[in-house]
Amino acid sequence: MLTKTPCMLEFFIVLKTFLGKHLMVLMELSRIMISETSDHQIIVLKENGGERSFPIVIGLHEAWAIDRAVKEIPTPRPLTHDLLTNIIAQLSDGLEKIEISDLKNNTFYAKIVINQNGNTIEIDSRPSDAIALAMQRKAPIYVAKKILDEVCKWDHS
Amino acid sequence: MLTKTPCMLEFFIVLKTFLGKHLMVLMELSRIMISETSDHQIIVLKENGGERSFPIVIGLHEAWAIDRAVKEIPTPRPLTHDLLTNIIAQLSDGLEKIEISDLKNNTFYAKIVINQNGNTIEIDSRPSDAIALAMQRKAPIYVAKKILDEVCKWDHS
Repeated sequence: MLTKTPCMLEFFIVLKTFLGKHLMVLMELSRIMISETSDHQIIVLKENGGERSFPIVIGLHEAWAIDRAVKEIPTPRPLTHDLLTNIIAQLSDGLEKIEISDLKNNTFYAKIVINQNGNTIEIDSRPSDAIALAMQRKAPIYVAKKILDEVCKWDHS
Repeated sequence: MLTKTPCMLEFFIVLKTFLGKHLMVLMELSRIMISETSDHQIIVLKENGGERSFPIVIGLHEAWAIDRAVKEIPTPRPLTHDLLTNIIAQLSDGLEKIEISDLKNNTFYAKIVINQNGNTIEIDSRPSDAIALAMQRKAPIYVAKKILDEVCKWDHS
């Protein structure tokens, strides 16, 4: 039976970190398309320093939250995504990044990555909420390379 | 100059706790009135074991969140208030209570009270978000006695 020695464990951790970095692609928010007569809004993420981009369909409430964060529009009272940001700020050392990490049955899955006392905490989220938080804190947005390859495979056909 | 001895400090802490308890009234959510054709929804809070109640006008998104929490309706992916609850659960020892603590210019102000490593952390919130969290975690809802006295003063006129 193969047992992992401390040295092997360290190797696996380094390998996982290396792969994690290189299997994630830094993105930027390039467009928000809001139609108040529709339940479905569209945001477009574009590869940072690259050409590839893809849309994500989100709800109106989340689209507004992202739009307000981009335009830095103040509100008299904290709205729900402001509250999310304030709670993270008060309970942790801050939002490190967000990752869109999976795509199953046409649904994107995201993670909010938070630092707390030297630990990294990952919390499952919809991409829309995660992107609203990232835009508020100017935190980086990553997308798994496998997803970008998948959703952009017809771009040049 | 008056200096506070450890004994006096202890007295002030006990006094503050006593006053805090007696100046806050435990409430329960008694009604949610949702009209999808209106931007303004109404929830009604009622004094626990008492007769007094008062309405709060909230947004549609928050009314849905409260309604889902009350009816324990599951969703395939975490919605924004589920994410709020999950973040509080992951980063702290949990939501202790929520308080509607102030009323200025016809706007209610609330606080989310969270325990973390033996500390109590209070975070400013709109009542709607705070009540959605309280309903999800079955946490108590308090209203400052001065507010209840103010908003219910015409009840028996």
